[in-house]
Order: sequence, then structure tokens, then C-alpha cells
Amino acid sequence: MSELRYDPIKHRWAIIAPERKMRPDELLVPQPEAPPPADADGCPFEYGQEHRTAPEILVIPRAQPAGSGPNWQVRVVPNRFPVLRVEGEVAREGLGFYDRVSGVGAHEVIVESPDHDRDTAALSQDEVVSVLVACRSRLQDLRRDPRLRYTLLFKNRGREAGATYSHPHWQLISTPIIPSVVVQELKVAREHYGRKERCIFCDLIRLELRLGVRVALETDRFIAISPFASAFPFETWILPRTHCHDLAVASDDDLTGLALILGDLLRRLRALLSDPPYNLVLHTAPSPHPRPGQPEYWSTIEHDFHWHLELVPRITRFAGFEWGSGYTINPTPPEEAARFLHDADPEQDAAAG
Amino acid sequence: MSELRYDPIKHRWAIIAPERKMRPDELLVPQPEAPPPADADGCPFEYGQEHRTAPEILVIPRAQPAGSGPNWQVRVVPNRFPVLRVEGEVAREGLGFYDRVSGVGAHEVIVESPDHDRDTAALSQDEVVSVLVACRSRLQDLRRDPRLRYTLLFKNRGREAGATYSHPHWQLISTPIIPSVVVQELKVAREHYGRKERCIFCDLIRLELRLGVRVALETDRFIAISPFASAFPFETWILPRTHCHDLAVASDDDLTGLALILGDLLRRLRALLSDPPYNLVLHTAPSPHPRPGQPEYWSTIEHDFHWHLELVPRITRFAGFEWGSGYTINPTPPEEAARFLHDADPEQDAAAG
Repeated sequence: MSELRYDPIKHRWAIIAPERKMRPDELLVPQPEAPPPADADGCPFEYGQEHRTAPEILVIPRAQPAGSGPNWQVRVVPNRFPVLRVEGEVAREGLGFYDRVSGVGAHEVIVESPDHDRDTAALSQDEVVSVLVACRSRLQDLRRDPRLRYTLLFKNRGREAGATYSHPHWQLISTPIIPSVVVQELKVAREHYGRKERCIFCDLIRLELRLGVRVALETDRFIAISPFASAFPFETWILPRTHCHDLAVASDDDLTGLALILGDLLRRLRALLSDPPYNLVLHTAPSPHPRPGQPEYWSTIEHDFHWHLELVPRITRFAGFEWGSGYTINPTPPEEAARFLHDADPEQDAAAG
Repeated sequence: MSELRYDPIKHRWAIIAPERKMRPDELLVPQPEAPPPADADGCPFEYGQEHRTAPEILVIPRAQPAGSGPNWQVRVVPNRFPVLRVEGEVAREGLGFYDRVSGVGAHEVIVESPDHDRDTAALSQDEVVSVLVACRSRLQDLRRDPRLRYTLLFKNRGREAGATYSHPHWQLISTPIIPSVVVQELKVAREHYGRKERCIFCDLIRLELRLGVRVALETDRFIAISPFASAFPFETWILPRTHCHDLAVASDDDLTGLALILGDLLRRLRALLSDPPYNLVLHTAPSPHPRPGQPEYWSTIEHDFHWHLELVPRITRFAGFEWGSGYTINPTPPEEAARFLHDADPEQDAAAG
């Protein structure tokens, strides 16, 4: 079984997940240029291959099913090689110098559409809405499990971004501790609110709208900005303009608006960067199960936190300097990235361009 | 000019380095599978190509120069596309919500040998010692510059690990602030020493030697361990067994001992993992120029910090979950990695195996 381990010097968690290693020789002789073995028998997420995954956790049906075509639009299935498992109690154990937590959690795959070849950029707005509805529904459901402290929703697109399957999909991993990146954000937001009674993300939106130079896209409900200290070229954050702490409570109209700006952004990136590999990460409120003795994360969270989506194209590499320093090196000033995105033609297909 | 930018929500620095982008279209149409453009005219670090780099900062001559062969063993040259530049004053500027620091620093390349095709694993112990002597010398020299707070020495090997050139080389980047990963380590070490009057790394070495299960290699001067919360498969830390805070003050005998265990470790990894891409990062004391008002880092550093080398093979990917959570997922338990390394045959060449 997996376990979460804490490093007493780095103050960093690692998930030791030996079940992910299918065969030792797969790990021992990596062939980075070869197609991933998971795809060797064809794609298990395609229409017609539904029997190859475990039973569905959730299905969003097609609005108008075609006669003989797929009757589903989005499928959520358990990950075949889960990092964490749903069964069991969460044991938190000290081993002298070290700490570990049993690897209880959830690991699911959200298949975006029956079509292997159309990434999010090529989906219709309604199709993207279906994906977001599935994400919101899974968030709501996993919140009920008192063992799980956070659900991280993310998407890896392209081999360079860590995707094992090329079929467009999101993933979610629910963990029995709140990830350190999220803890840091929650802490900053809470402190800012405590001092100023204002949401730090709302402050960011107001400032960036006033300055204008890092605003890539703007709709009536959302804003897409190139953050001041962008870690990667064309890193982009999408934030709802009206304060809301949690995607789980976002309205249908919010999801429709998010689908619009996300699709637009991805099409512009496709045109500019020739269908780049990317990661998308949702930042949202943790599960409402306060850690005993630490109720403070939840006392003002509706006011202090602000959900958002972070996109990082994976054009530059995370190498020795980045790992050793915690800094990133970004050759593209965010002001330039925002201007490129703003001026891009979202309909110019990379293949044709 | 480059600048360091601080994110007020993530509390994370990014180096915005537009000079790294040679031409916009190189960034805009990345071709990850193509050979890096830097190598298009052949390798500038090979014997006979010395005129293609800027003048040398340091040369370690060959012990016994061959009649017509190279007369140098190690060359240190400025990076052609430096992330930070040596010229100028360090300006620290607040921009309301945001902070920035001018991109003053050093960025150098340490060419390990005249031979393009022999990585560190294939070098003799004496040749590796020459590389380490060059590293120590550059550390000592850069310590004299009061603008520079830390010098990070690292090596990227292989494209997957971020190497642009395949010719074996280390790099160093000196920065006007101490990197956050280093700050965290210094803080933990100082607190541990403050409470216990013991070095936390010495404690780690004693514990791991007693337990044994995560000790990969052991010599009279050094220990190589697979850390308890290894972030990556076969992550390995090499630590001197006798307490020492800084590679800049390590003795020649220390460097000879380090060359021995490093070469052995890299040959075992080559045999086990088929010449894997990897990053090597030196963790050592910061420059002795305390930040005004913060003398505490330096008050006990000779006692509380312990230099070491961290190696991470890059077999798994840093994807959306890792970026969004700050956790890593590692399929290989460190106890297994240590056993594999311990039992490996360092002389079994990957090519032959």
C-alpha cells in the first residue's frame, strides 16, 4: 500500500506509491522516446472501449445521442494504477525522526469526451461545460468523506507535461492532508483577510484590471492574467471576477462562463505555441473537515479564499537549478505573454498556421 | 536585463530572463524532439572548439598533457545566455503589491573534460577530482562578491533533465537572494542546533547507519543514502561523514573521497537504469554576507549546516499534481532503491548490459 512520507529536513511530503510500478523492468529501463505502454493495446478511454475501465463513478450523457454513436459525453472512472486507495483508515504515525500517513485517498480519471483526438481546445463550449459539471460533481461528492482533506483536480496534456494517455482527460487525487502549495495559499489569503477584510485575489484582479498590461483575456464573468512572477512562459491564471471561494458551489452560469474563457485561452495557446504540452490545476477550498485543533482554515474561508484555474504550458524544463533553488527561470516576461495571448487569433489552427 | 520577481500569493521567486530567448520563434514553436539548436554547429565545449566560448574564468590543466592533445582538463566559462549578469548594482524595489530585484549574479559553465562522450560515470577518479577542485575554487572566488548571497552548483544530464548541451558539464548560478529551498534547509538546521546543539544532518547519518536499510553506499569518508521521503525513484544524497558546513572549505582529501563515491554511484545508476537523465545539486553554506538585520543565518552555521550533494534521476515526470500540490509521487520505495544500488555491479556498462 502507498504511504505519504514527510522529510524532516526539507519539510516536504512524498507519496511513495509502489503499486504504480507495473513491472520493475519498466522502471529500470525507461525509454522516454517510446510510446507509453499504457497505450500499447489502443486507448481504453475511447468510444467502444468502455469495458476496459473499471465501472464508472459518474457519467454525463450526451445531450442528443446519435443513433449508433456514443451515448455518453463524459465518463469518470477510477485510475487503473491509483496513487492512493479509497479503502482503509487514515493512520498517522511517527517513526522517531520521520513521519508517515497511510495512503488513503481517491484517484480518478475524468474522460473529457468519447473522441480520442479532440483536446479541450477543439471541444464545443457545451462539451467543456459537461467536463466542468463532472468536476464539480466529483468535488461535491468527495467532500462528504471525512478522511479526505483536499481534492486536487488537474490535467496533464502531452508527454512533456506528464500525460500517460493522449486521450483528453482530467484527473483528481484526494489526499488525507492538505497539499503544501495549497496550505501556503490558504495561509496567505487568511492573513490578508485578517488584516484588511479583503480577499487577496479580489485585490489582485482589481490591480491587474487597472494596470491592464498582464490581462490576457476578459469576459463578463472571468479574467485571464499572466501573473507578475510567472514561473513558466505563458503561465495563465483564470479567476472568476465575482468573489467565490469554491468551485463546488459555483453556479451553472459560472461553469458556462469558465468553459468559454478556457476554450478561448486554449485555442489561442494552440495557435501561438503549436499545440503545446500543458498542465492545468484547479485551486479551490479544502474539504470542510477541519483538522482537530486547527479550525482557523475554515473560519473565514468563504470570505478569504477565491477559487481559480492555473495553466502552465510546459515549454521550459524543470531542471537542477529549479529543483535545488525553488526558483523557476522564465524567458518570457508576463507582459509580453499577455499581449501575445490578447492579440492571437483563436481560430487559427496550429496545424494550418 | 533579467529580474527576480516575487509572487505575493505563492511566496515564490521567478527569474524573468528575456535574454535567454534567442529568437521569439524559437520559443513560440518548440520542437521538443529536435536536437537543441545550441548543438547545431557542433559542440562548443569540445577540444578544438575553445575559441567558440568566451574567455575562460578558470582552467585546470592536464596532469600530463599529450603531445598534440588537449592541454586542459577542466574549463570554466561564462554561460553564453546568462540567466543573471555580473554587471551592475543590486536594486531591490517594491511595486505596491509586488517586489522585484535586479538580475545581478553569475552564470558559469564548468566543462568536465575535453571529451564530448564521456559523462562523469566514465571519468577516472582523478578527472572527477579536477572537476570538484574547479567547483570549490569558483565557490571560494564568488564568495568575495558582497552582492551575491548564494552560489548554486548543479548539473543537468540528458534532455529529460534539462540539459541543452550533451557535453558533460556542471553549471553555477549565483543569486542576490538565498534560494527558498536553501533558506528552508538553513532554518531547519539552525532550529535543530538551537534546541539540541547537534547538526541535524549528523543525526540523520547516525540514524541511517544504525538502521542500514536506506544506506546505498558507504566509504570511510562519505555515505550515500536513499532518503526516507525520496521525491524521485533512486534519489540519493551523498554526505561527508565528518561534519563540515561548506564545500568551499573541504580538503583535497575530501574531494578525492567525494570523487570516489560519486563515480561509483553514477556507474551503478548507469548499470541499473540504462544511463538515466539526472540532476545533481550541491547544498552548501551561503556566502558570508549576512542580510542586514538577519545575522542569525551565520551565527552558528559552521556547527548547524552540513554540505551534501543531492542526485535525482529524472525517470518520473513533474506534472500537474506535483506542481499544484508540492508533493511528488515516487513509485520506488527508498529501501528498495538502496538495496538495488548496493547490489549493483558498477562495472556493468549499460550499453553492454
